[in-house]
Amino acid sequence: MTHSESELLEDANPLPAALDPRLRAQFTFLIEADKLKTVLRQSPLAAADRRENDAEHSWHLALMVPLLAEYADEPIDVGHTTKLVIVHDLIEIYAGDTPLYDTEAGTSQQEREAAAADRLFGLLPGDQAREFRSLWDEFEARSTPEARFAKAMDRLQPLLLNWMAKGGTWRTPGVTAETVRARKAVIGDASAALWEAGKRLIDEGERRGWARSGGQAR
Amino acid sequence: MTHSESELLEDANPLPAALDPRLRAQFTFLIEADKLKTVLRQSPLAAADRRENDAEHSWHLALMVPLLAEYADEPIDVGHTTKLVIVHDLIEIYAGDTPLYDTEAGTSQQEREAAAADRLFGLLPGDQAREFRSLWDEFEARSTPEARFAKAMDRLQPLLLNWMAKGGTWRTPGVTAETVRARKAVIGDASAALWEAGKRLIDEGERRGWARSGGQAR
Repeated sequence: MTHSESELLEDANPLPAALDPRLRAQFTFLIEADKLKTVLRQSPLAAADRRENDAEHSWHLALMVPLLAEYADEPIDVGHTTKLVIVHDLIEIYAGDTPLYDTEAGTSQQEREAAAADRLFGLLPGDQAREFRSLWDEFEARSTPEARFAKAMDRLQPLLLNWMAKGGTWRTPGVTAETVRARKAVIGDASAALWEAGKRLIDEGERRGWARSGGQAR
Repeated sequence: MTHSESELLEDANPLPAALDPRLRAQFTFLIEADKLKTVLRQSPLAAADRRENDAEHSWHLALMVPLLAEYADEPIDVGHTTKLVIVHDLIEIYAGDTPLYDTEAGTSQQEREAAAADRLFGLLPGDQAREFRSLWDEFEARSTPEARFAKAMDRLQPLLLNWMAKGGTWRTPGVTAETVRARKAVIGDASAALWEAGKRLIDEGERRGWARSGGQAR
């Protein structure tokens, strides 16, 4: 679910006024961030019969970064890449999750997300508001090796979940194996080896009938 | 819930045999890690009426590390500290969560957790099994500034959630404000400022009747 923009979680039970104002702003932001645990994605969990939420997804990417960094085609700073995946979905607290295969929502997505970023990171003290906004901008622009690798993790993780679900969101109406390949190809911008592995999963999924064969549906 | 130790998630739908064996082991571990999303903690979410799971909690800590690192009393490597919080609860996939105020479970906890670590990290290629085991050992031993700060985040985060719940697990039978202070005091091993803030929340919670007054109940 997406929460009302007009109300902060912390408003329901304000922190003690005696707290240092900077720390109070940081705690207010951290409490507000709790909402990420309620933003549902399309991906089904492998371990339970429910959809994944953004906080769980972000944690999973943060685990993948140090584990798979060896496959990056350009050297990456693991700590910085981890920061990128930790913050990359935060703005969905206000902007909601846009499903990968939803092309209509995609058009207004950028505007909604930029407004959400202004509002959310604006809760932080000025220096940190700029720092976190710049992490999110870097992820979105994919202009650094770290951002490209973070994006690759963001596309590879649901691929593993869809494999475990024997299709998962690959079965979305209008989606074919070719659509999946097209949306996942950015993995190859960060790592040829991981994209090779990703393609193997999609190819094998298509062979088993978990993703429709044929050209791109739209 | 805690899953059977005898069955890997990946067993239910084995990855293509054609994958490189090292990458296959890494993917198998990453799929198994999905189980962390089903290990429930005692803490209530601030954003929804349900308990938090370990994956959500670990993500929240990873967000706190760069945000609150400025309060560390000793210099810390933010990237390394983030790694520690990302992996710190992984072994609960097999060992389960031990509630902070449950002193009986605490006695067998160490053994169960060491066995869980052997099993879980043993899924990884040897070099990474050693690397991840050593991260978990470091967190547990609190022998580095990074591990002490990671532990402080682990104790501070539920304090914020309990504040938002107007008590939360502070209301556990047998627990008083003094018990809470005793269990949270490790925050002060990493940061005097954050422990000062934590105490303010507990003191104010006690004043408002969200935590029982009086000496330590046991």
